[in-house]
Amino acid sequence: MARIAYVNGRYIDHAYANVHIEDRGYQFSDGIYEYIAFYNKKLLDGDLHFKRLERSLKELQILEPVNAGALKVIVRELIERNGREDGGLYIQVTRGVAKRDHVFPKNVRPALVMTICGAKTPKAHEFTDGVKVISQPDNRWARRDIKSVSLLANILAKQEAGNQKVRESLLLEKDGTVNEGSASNVFIVTPSGTLVTHQADEDILGGITRDVLLKLAKKAGIKTEERAFNIIEAKDAAEAFITSTSINVLPVVKIDDRLVGKGSVGAVTKKMQELYNAHIYKQTGK
Amino acid sequence: MARIAYVNGRYIDHAYANVHIEDRGYQFSDGIYEYIAFYNKKLLDGDLHFKRLERSLKELQILEPVNAGALKVIVRELIERNGREDGGLYIQVTRGVAKRDHVFPKNVRPALVMTICGAKTPKAHEFTDGVKVISQPDNRWARRDIKSVSLLANILAKQEAGNQKVRESLLLEKDGTVNEGSASNVFIVTPSGTLVTHQADEDILGGITRDVLLKLAKKAGIKTEERAFNIIEAKDAAEAFITSTSINVLPVVKIDDRLVGKGSVGAVTKKMQELYNAHIYKQTGK
Repeated sequence: MARIAYVNGRYIDHAYANVHIEDRGYQFSDGIYEYIAFYNKKLLDGDLHFKRLERSLKELQILEPVNAGALKVIVRELIERNGREDGGLYIQVTRGVAKRDHVFPKNVRPALVMTICGAKTPKAHEFTDGVKVISQPDNRWARRDIKSVSLLANILAKQEAGNQKVRESLLLEKDGTVNEGSASNVFIVTPSGTLVTHQADEDILGGITRDVLLKLAKKAGIKTEERAFNIIEAKDAAEAFITSTSINVLPVVKIDDRLVGKGSVGAVTKKMQELYNAHIYKQTGK
Repeated sequence: MARIAYVNGRYIDHAYANVHIEDRGYQFSDGIYEYIAFYNKKLLDGDLHFKRLERSLKELQILEPVNAGALKVIVRELIERNGREDGGLYIQVTRGVAKRDHVFPKNVRPALVMTICGAKTPKAHEFTDGVKVISQPDNRWARRDIKSVSLLANILAKQEAGNQKVRESLLLEKDGTVNEGSASNVFIVTPSGTLVTHQADEDILGGITRDVLLKLAKKAGIKTEERAFNIIEAKDAAEAFITSTSINVLPVVKIDDRLVGKGSVGAVTKKMQELYNAHIYKQTGK
């Protein structure tokens, strides 16, 4: 089956899916995005993602390219046309095409682009053995809470992880505070068993998986705290894991040169994996 | 005459100039740019711009899309095809088109896009009367020395200037240090007549106009200093001006609610305008 993309009103062969060179997404990274997993053609936490998309647009004063109802219709149609049961939906909205000038253009229609890809799930052994991560300075701009395509600092940090043959880079403030990963949120389990993750403020992108996990943990009677923690506390933690739409709940067993806990996947992490997989099953049957 | 753009090897009608939706410039702001003014079809300080372009690519480990010689041939041809005597040349290079993934793709050709536009010179009265600016927090990422398309923080700051009906936003560190403008460098003249601008480090984009002006000032016997200064010193300065390829030397007569000096264009600023215009004339005959 051909790979089909949606671009500004048209469903087209992915290979020929183009945008204008003066789309402000291309020249100014003036746009936002969402990545939503689907199983059995059903979006996982779709409403939460659409809500965040709306928020990102509002924060950047970009108009909604289509209304919420139309957006869902397009998404359903695009998944259908791509014939995939499971995979990922990428949605990007930019301020639109305009003569290059820093200030917002007037009377410009926002651009809407969507693509479908295969699921980016980690390998089975990564879930059971855990992964290694490194710490890196957080070089991003000040508004990490907006899911913008201004991702240059993120990709450089992710690339550095790749260079060092580890899964992810944890992004640190100068004082050692762990904000999040280059493309994930970070959770630690304290020696006394509390699940801790950075509070959702302008310093982090409040992940949907993060939010869902916090709710699931509370419901299961696990003590949770949303607060800043630093890299020393992370290395001294009993357990750690990173989360995102594509990586699910991925155990971290080594940070820089230090094993986390016993260097194997801990009980709370396993519990969170179970809870999250049950959440996926409940919503999508997968 | 039709407006012609250059896109990855082809000269095409600007209206139909497209890039793929998975160009990493569009999805990750994974690219860099230059803007070069030309007069009488001659580039102003072209070699300095090409050198900075090379440096930006190197810092991001993006390959050169074509060699330096070929780049100049394309530029000449594009200016010729657009039939403009004076104007601006915009060059953008991105890491290329690849399946969306944060890490650098392998074996991908960088994308090269160029457009030509009319000169963006300020209005005559802005040069003679000066302009107003406001101060804003510098929300950009840590590597402002790379001329990347990761410009979301810049455009938001510029937009805020527009909202407040002033020409530019000066971007401030939390301690009040004035880094630069959202799309310009900032110079002040101290009460004792020294020309001061922020040193060229990772906190600012080392503008070509900035560099040229420093050289011209030294040659003319004006005392210069490259050092950090804060917003209080800027407001207490005898004179201030902002510079860039498109705005030339633009006097600043008001910062936030404070007049700079007497609120009119000062002698050193006028001298720098003369020196810079003479520099343009010497190189391009305009």
